[in-house]
Amino acid sequence: MKGPQLFPPVVYQKPPCPWSARTRWVHARAGQARLQECSPETKTGTLILIQTLWLARSALTALGMLAQLYFKRLPGWWKMLVVAMCMALLACLQAQELQGHVSIILLGATGDLAKKYLWQGLFQLYLDEVGKGYSFSFHGAALTSTKQGQEFIAKVLESLSCPEDMAPGRCAELRGQFQQLSQYRHLRTSEDYMALSKDIEAQLQHKGLQEAGRIFYFSVPPFAYADIARNINSSCRPGPGAWLRVVLEKPFGHDRLSAQQLATELGSFFQEKEMYRVDHYLGKQAVAQILPFRDQNRKALDGLWNRHHVERVEIIMKETVDAEGRTSFYEEYGVIRDVLQNHLTEVLTLVAMELPHNISSSEAVLRHKLQAFRALRGLQKGSAVLGQYQAYSEQVRREQRKPDSFRSLTPTFAGILVHMDNLRWEGVPFLLMSGKALDERVGYVRILFRNQAYCAQNEKRWVADQSQCLPRQIVFYIGHGELGSPAVLVSRNLFRPSLPSKSWKEVEGRPRLHLFGRPLSDYYAYSPVREQDAYSVLISHIFHGRKDSFITTENLLASWVFWTPLLDSLAHEVPRLYPGGAENGHLLDFEFSGTQLRFSQQQLEQLVPGPGSAPKPSDFQVLQAKYRESPLISAWPEELIAKLAEDIEATAVRAVQRFGEFHLALSGGSSPVPLFEQLATRHYGFPWAHTHLWLVDERCVPLRDPESNFQGLQAHLLQHVRVPHYNVHPMPVHLHQRLCAEEDRGAQMYASEISALVTNSSFDLVLLGMGMDGHTASLFPQSPAGLEGTQLVVLTRSPSKPHERMSLSLPLINRAHKVAVLVMGRMKREITMLVSRVGHEPKKWPISGVLPSSGQLVWYMDYEAFLG
Amino acid sequence: MKGPQLFPPVVYQKPPCPWSARTRWVHARAGQARLQECSPETKTGTLILIQTLWLARSALTALGMLAQLYFKRLPGWWKMLVVAMCMALLACLQAQELQGHVSIILLGATGDLAKKYLWQGLFQLYLDEVGKGYSFSFHGAALTSTKQGQEFIAKVLESLSCPEDMAPGRCAELRGQFQQLSQYRHLRTSEDYMALSKDIEAQLQHKGLQEAGRIFYFSVPPFAYADIARNINSSCRPGPGAWLRVVLEKPFGHDRLSAQQLATELGSFFQEKEMYRVDHYLGKQAVAQILPFRDQNRKALDGLWNRHHVERVEIIMKETVDAEGRTSFYEEYGVIRDVLQNHLTEVLTLVAMELPHNISSSEAVLRHKLQAFRALRGLQKGSAVLGQYQAYSEQVRREQRKPDSFRSLTPTFAGILVHMDNLRWEGVPFLLMSGKALDERVGYVRILFRNQAYCAQNEKRWVADQSQCLPRQIVFYIGHGELGSPAVLVSRNLFRPSLPSKSWKEVEGRPRLHLFGRPLSDYYAYSPVREQDAYSVLISHIFHGRKDSFITTENLLASWVFWTPLLDSLAHEVPRLYPGGAENGHLLDFEFSGTQLRFSQQQLEQLVPGPGSAPKPSDFQVLQAKYRESPLISAWPEELIAKLAEDIEATAVRAVQRFGEFHLALSGGSSPVPLFEQLATRHYGFPWAHTHLWLVDERCVPLRDPESNFQGLQAHLLQHVRVPHYNVHPMPVHLHQRLCAEEDRGAQMYASEISALVTNSSFDLVLLGMGMDGHTASLFPQSPAGLEGTQLVVLTRSPSKPHERMSLSLPLINRAHKVAVLVMGRMKREITMLVSRVGHEPKKWPISGVLPSSGQLVWYMDYEAFLG
Repeated sequence: MKGPQLFPPVVYQKPPCPWSARTRWVHARAGQARLQECSPETKTGTLILIQTLWLARSALTALGMLAQLYFKRLPGWWKMLVVAMCMALLACLQAQELQGHVSIILLGATGDLAKKYLWQGLFQLYLDEVGKGYSFSFHGAALTSTKQGQEFIAKVLESLSCPEDMAPGRCAELRGQFQQLSQYRHLRTSEDYMALSKDIEAQLQHKGLQEAGRIFYFSVPPFAYADIARNINSSCRPGPGAWLRVVLEKPFGHDRLSAQQLATELGSFFQEKEMYRVDHYLGKQAVAQILPFRDQNRKALDGLWNRHHVERVEIIMKETVDAEGRTSFYEEYGVIRDVLQNHLTEVLTLVAMELPHNISSSEAVLRHKLQAFRALRGLQKGSAVLGQYQAYSEQVRREQRKPDSFRSLTPTFAGILVHMDNLRWEGVPFLLMSGKALDERVGYVRILFRNQAYCAQNEKRWVADQSQCLPRQIVFYIGHGELGSPAVLVSRNLFRPSLPSKSWKEVEGRPRLHLFGRPLSDYYAYSPVREQDAYSVLISHIFHGRKDSFITTENLLASWVFWTPLLDSLAHEVPRLYPGGAENGHLLDFEFSGTQLRFSQQQLEQLVPGPGSAPKPSDFQVLQAKYRESPLISAWPEELIAKLAEDIEATAVRAVQRFGEFHLALSGGSSPVPLFEQLATRHYGFPWAHTHLWLVDERCVPLRDPESNFQGLQAHLLQHVRVPHYNVHPMPVHLHQRLCAEEDRGAQMYASEISALVTNSSFDLVLLGMGMDGHTASLFPQSPAGLEGTQLVVLTRSPSKPHERMSLSLPLINRAHKVAVLVMGRMKREITMLVSRVGHEPKKWPISGVLPSSGQLVWYMDYEAFLG
Repeated sequence: MKGPQLFPPVVYQKPPCPWSARTRWVHARAGQARLQECSPETKTGTLILIQTLWLARSALTALGMLAQLYFKRLPGWWKMLVVAMCMALLACLQAQELQGHVSIILLGATGDLAKKYLWQGLFQLYLDEVGKGYSFSFHGAALTSTKQGQEFIAKVLESLSCPEDMAPGRCAELRGQFQQLSQYRHLRTSEDYMALSKDIEAQLQHKGLQEAGRIFYFSVPPFAYADIARNINSSCRPGPGAWLRVVLEKPFGHDRLSAQQLATELGSFFQEKEMYRVDHYLGKQAVAQILPFRDQNRKALDGLWNRHHVERVEIIMKETVDAEGRTSFYEEYGVIRDVLQNHLTEVLTLVAMELPHNISSSEAVLRHKLQAFRALRGLQKGSAVLGQYQAYSEQVRREQRKPDSFRSLTPTFAGILVHMDNLRWEGVPFLLMSGKALDERVGYVRILFRNQAYCAQNEKRWVADQSQCLPRQIVFYIGHGELGSPAVLVSRNLFRPSLPSKSWKEVEGRPRLHLFGRPLSDYYAYSPVREQDAYSVLISHIFHGRKDSFITTENLLASWVFWTPLLDSLAHEVPRLYPGGAENGHLLDFEFSGTQLRFSQQQLEQLVPGPGSAPKPSDFQVLQAKYRESPLISAWPEELIAKLAEDIEATAVRAVQRFGEFHLALSGGSSPVPLFEQLATRHYGFPWAHTHLWLVDERCVPLRDPESNFQGLQAHLLQHVRVPHYNVHPMPVHLHQRLCAEEDRGAQMYASEISALVTNSSFDLVLLGMGMDGHTASLFPQSPAGLEGTQLVVLTRSPSKPHERMSLSLPLINRAHKVAVLVMGRMKREITMLVSRVGHEPKKWPISGVLPSSGQLVWYMDYEAFLG
């Protein structure tokens, strides 16, 4: 949407304005303008204080001694009230004088965005603010020659429109004024910037105006940012006591690193409070209404806005257009960077964040938003489905002259499953989706509530505002779609919402319209009294310093921290091709299960496996053989894990039937994770209530450390099943605030716990892994600890970090009734081959010492580890 | 539905039949009939064995030496195959001869049930079995005079109908035969029974028939059971080697105790295997299809039939009729005993039970069903909503001549929320509902699956068999309703089910019919090829000894164990009145939240609180005052708990902000339970991840004991929030398999754990209660332990069981930053008054010793405790 203006680098520097050290409180009036630099809260607070002092004096002087006499007789509270009222009155009367002059410089003034939205936004600002004490000048700046630029601007200004309810005469008058105040400037070199600044200053002086501030709106491509920023900083800052605001347009980087670099660069020219990063979604009326809606309906929403009542949240932006003509941009970005990382994520945080007590505090809103970012659970490859409309690659080839063989991997469609790791939202799926070449253009946020009702009457008799069995939802309808305008919809069986009646009105009946499964009449539906373009809204917010409608550096980086790992992991993913439009059918429908997302329909692939093609899991059965003279079970990973989980359950059931309990010792690391997940989600008959869980080994880190084996066990297994607290036995690696100190006798403690609870110290099942150096548990080659002797639990030293470990000893492991060794992945191929040939040499290869004295040893290896 | 026949007690006894000690294996043929007494499995197994022996011999003899010669040359497995085939062939040829004579005695043969269903059921049995080797005689018995009875029977037999597909001639022929075999008998005294038995024996002898067995169908009121049972047992058991089956009709008791008594009484006359308790719902075709459906669609259902995919299960029986004319029965029973305890619970177990490997094993089915009963979570008052149609009390007054002031509390409508405590179903709501005077007559089981999909297309483009966003459900439609016949419905977007095509056919199109929110065309819908009455089905099952279609004593008692506590707790509950029919509107809709069920609409009560009426919670605000010179907060229980939870959260948030962690010591018992629940479900901002939980005191029982304070904490709080494992500190009352042994130094261990982790051993918050004797924690009057001194944790002795306790000491408690004492309930009124007046006398009233040395003490008392 950016025009073609270029601002080439110009080397020129001037020291920063010298006003920054000015004393603030000397003159109240002067200080007031200066205060615009403070955060809105400080500003408001301090303004009130200054006005209080100044006005109180004037007011009391003016009212004279007589009034003072009466005033003295009033009770204490009344006095304060009278003072406050007097001040308010005077503040109103004086408002006209208190403001100053604002210069707005639109960089890229002849570009598409400026033409379509920004000039209109500036005009709207003028319409809103005219007569409220500020004076304005508007500078359209670009690289175009002055003449061409002037012509362009003149044409644009001619076409500006007023609100529908304004009389045409008044409109023409105001448009005339606006045209007078607007001019085109060629702005390229640092000299140009200096000249601009001088002109502004001259104008101010000429008209005897105080400068309030300057707004620079960057409607230019990001690569031009640095030079413009440098020029503004060095030559174009406003005079002392006036504020500077620079407005930036996305993209704000391409990933975490580039965003960080861009932010650092801009940070060298501007203070955080001076920067306004625009996400125009935050100016969309329905989006801007999310927080006020939550605030004004606190009472009704308080009990509902949480995991107990919300079934899911959908945040959707569907487009019908494709990327034709823009593939050079699109090919670099793709749908996630173009729409999800910014627009949809912003909306997500507005829905999910804890609601500040006072939503008019920008600082509080931004802080809560940042907390919401931090509660986002990390995304994995399985959290996303990607698509690409069929014609895309051809469009890229054509527009970018790529060879016929070129196939783009850039997604034009993405569905993402997001979870929040906090008590309010835990387990609630947030579905984000956007795509091009879909069947309709529409954007919405839909909060669907759980149906926890049973309706005793036949469904034919259900009444929309009474039946709790009809869907209950709140929709912020961002725009387009079948409704055709922004709206807020609340199911009638939820509650009658409160919306500001000045700006939102009830939607008039459209009997045939169905939205989200229900006729429109089933909703309390509100649309804006006056539809406003997002940019008009945002320009007004910039003018009023409402920073909460913009992206702070902190929030921007938090968003990239969230998205970058996913983007990296998807870089080589092949998106599903889709024909586009209604033809997509159900091809792009997706569904989730746990934290995994997948397309609902299997891809219709023609699988003609050639001689060299990799075999599919289904081509193989579980293979049974021998390895080191013990049974070996080999299969593809999925089948192998399923088989191991089955075997563990069978062993558990037998042990519980015979002895009433099952003692299972588990290894940590990444290999057992899919096993834990399998056990957690698919084994309904597992006797967890009678299972004791022990650790095979542990790293000497606090148990809550992400490196801790116990932490992995907790995250992937314990939190999903109900093992009684007292049956879980983490290794005591952290006693007296120390890690694995010999003197704390943690190993001995664990050994005596085992002796006390496990009959004969024989675990029912020990699950081991095998390292690439032949280690198992935390028993390492060339390190004698735990390989023999009578100690049941030992402290050992690992060659890799963290070095200190606690481990069951080999003799203890060999007392188990059953030992299962799980080996997975191609990386293990070499050691697997080696160990198959060596004898009993635990000092070289500790795994070779695993041989239960009266129990059974079974090897579970996937094909990659076993067959290579 | 029972007729008015009475069977008055007759005293007469005869020793039990003498065949019970007969040797079993002497003659295979005779033994075979005898085996009918065994469980079906043993029977089948043993029959095969006998036939194997007998037939193998005959077959081999018959085939002679030549065959034997060839046979010998065959490989081992082939030999077995040949033998088996020969045996099967011979078994078929001989089937005709292997059967015998069955006498069926219908007691209450002139009653309503007999007239409406049972005679037709017997005729159906005859139609099904005729020509398959059995001979029959049917004895309609009642107290009616012989002449009247004969006339009645003749009339009933005239009206019997054949299946539609039978030729009328054949029908008339068979009905004629059936009439020939049927006769009326007056049956009252023990002599009558003896005579009946003699007649049967004479007939058998006369016709040279072997007796196979006798079926006695009790279609009489339960009070008549005992005498009939005694007569049958003493005078009417079949001859040696033949089986006896008695068929019983509900009600089987009124609660756990009466059901147990009835079962014990019947058990003194009959063996368990001889009794067939009828729940006619198990004979309904759709209900009878549940297990076969689950079995035949295992592959599709395997991944779906669990908490991850099932959103809810509805088990519903709605009636339009009311109880008029039957109030004398109904007033005793009510809807829960009439419908839910039996019919709906049976259906529930069929849906929820683990599916046996072999569903044709009655024994396995019954065992799994019993396990399902045992997994039912106990019901509480809050699990139910009750209603009564408005005219009911008037009907009772009229029919039972009650005074005008009489108001019945018997529910005619109930909704119940059931949960299963197993991994498959944990958290899945099972909603049971039944009522009279509702808007339609219909019965169904509906399994609704979760919607975990997002559909990328506009809903207008969704296609029923492809879109995962349309509702996905499986419905066993028991009958009536808009469909008008039994059916099995499976949403097309689930899978195409497999049903036995001989007995189930696809429902033909009824384009306008909508069921459960979707047009019928959205379902794969099957209905029976031939609709069968439940009694016909069950009579056939009785004849074939299929015990899994009947209620065993064990299952019956398990059901009463489940229902009785709820029935007791609801005994004095006032049901919501409803007008009946479509007028009910949304009055009976109910919804659940956690384990609580409530009506969706608030009752429209006219609250004109008179001078003596109890104040409502909303009439009061939280009251703040002083008690023992410390702050007192008093309110109604709900507000009090809410306030305490809020205060605890605020304390926690402050502590975590300042110190990074929050140490909370909690008391056990019942008072804190609502607090735990409040904290678990409503405090999203609680910093659980940084909270350490300690116990104030503990009973010396294993931690897993239901009496254990820790167990309560685990059940009501821990399992709902995510406190890291290592932050939970149960008291070590159970060390080395001993409880609170001094030598195990558990108290010292806990003290040193506190010293190590809690700065200065000062808890951030200690929650205490107050006993009626003034005890607090487990510090009891007149017992010095823990009241003073340096010990932090002590072993103490309680006057009530379990006597041994472990407790934080008073000095330790008084080191806390904050102590909250929660006192609730009228029972505490006296001690509250007393303690308000006493000084510092911890030896008499330990609670009076609570006074944090540098912390704050706050009393939380509800109005009942504080104001009495």
